[in-house]
Amino acid sequence: MFDYAEDDMSSYKLTYFNIYGLAEPIRFLFNYGGIDFIDERMTEEDWLRLKATMPFGQVPVLEVNGKKINQSTAICRYLAKQVGLTGQDDWENLEIDAVVDTISDLRVKINAAHYEKNAESKAQKLAVAKSTTDLVIDRLNDRVAKNKGHLVNGKLTWADLYFVAQLDLLNARAARDILKNAKNLQELRDKVLALPKIKAWIEKRPKSDY
Amino acid sequence: MFDYAEDDMSSYKLTYFNIYGLAEPIRFLFNYGGIDFIDERMTEEDWLRLKATMPFGQVPVLEVNGKKINQSTAICRYLAKQVGLTGQDDWENLEIDAVVDTISDLRVKINAAHYEKNAESKAQKLAVAKSTTDLVIDRLNDRVAKNKGHLVNGKLTWADLYFVAQLDLLNARAARDILKNAKNLQELRDKVLALPKIKAWIEKRPKSDY
Repeated sequence: MFDYAEDDMSSYKLTYFNIYGLAEPIRFLFNYGGIDFIDERMTEEDWLRLKATMPFGQVPVLEVNGKKINQSTAICRYLAKQVGLTGQDDWENLEIDAVVDTISDLRVKINAAHYEKNAESKAQKLAVAKSTTDLVIDRLNDRVAKNKGHLVNGKLTWADLYFVAQLDLLNARAARDILKNAKNLQELRDKVLALPKIKAWIEKRPKSDY
Repeated sequence: MFDYAEDDMSSYKLTYFNIYGLAEPIRFLFNYGGIDFIDERMTEEDWLRLKATMPFGQVPVLEVNGKKINQSTAICRYLAKQVGLTGQDDWENLEIDAVVDTISDLRVKINAAHYEKNAESKAQKLAVAKSTTDLVIDRLNDRVAKNKGHLVNGKLTWADLYFVAQLDLLNARAARDILKNAKNLQELRDKVLALPKIKAWIEKRPKSDY
């Protein structure tokens, strides 16, 4: 184990389960930047023991030099600054944040339908998830055409990595290929997955569920 | 009407309904900073006409010098930079972002219970909302004790304004005073509401629902 205490570089430990879930965008960013991190994947048993030690009883949680912080999107934004994937001014960062939160909201709606147990409520939530997915994917696809093959700002940003890292989960929960009619987004996905450090991560990451 | 085109200051138009909802934190930030903005409050009829013109078919949307942007939290972060309510480094901003998203997630859970129509699902969602509220409020209350009367960083940040601007909505949807046992958060609320520009806004803002 590398002894971070003898070096001035930050030490990072990411705690989550052995799934993609909310942690995969964080793992993409660490790998993109070539930053070492401990990728702690808890069992259910670990979780019972560790839950009370987490800032708001939830994961993913990132520990930076011993300080714990929750909220996956906030963590992604922080790491994006370290690895040079933010915008060049406040407006560009606003554009990135808006797209990321739009994708995050989409996941919330898709999850709400997926996890609903009551048949009547589920039908209603599936309809909302379907129409939201169609609209969001359609508009994001249009944006890629206007942003030189990226979601915003005409260049690679952490919004692109966030989106691609969440895709497997979104497809699995929606139980369909949500990019089926979105050629530009398919190309963006392929481009991100072909980035050498992301490609290497995909090849070496532990087998896991979404 | 002020002619922004003849001046170098930005022009802002905020489009939403005549409710607090997701727009009130944005309105707090504009008022805190003494920034002029058009506070457009649509009728349902307006909305039918304007929905298709919004970036992702949703509001609030902020128009900055004619460019439209969605997502309330992203907009708040952008405005916080303009009015000096961000952190002094990346870590402080991460702390702010994590608390804001924790509050936002709480609202999502409380709303999910409030809007659920099926009785069985509603009971289950109310239980989740109740336990999440108790845990989040308890931990936020502890943080205020450690942060000189603020949520993070030992000073006033946009997380404080965001929280207080959402409180009426959270209380209304939860159908109880969620700060009843949280003395530190009550004091924080009173402090924010006593800020001269926020106090003036509360007094002059249009009567509206949550």
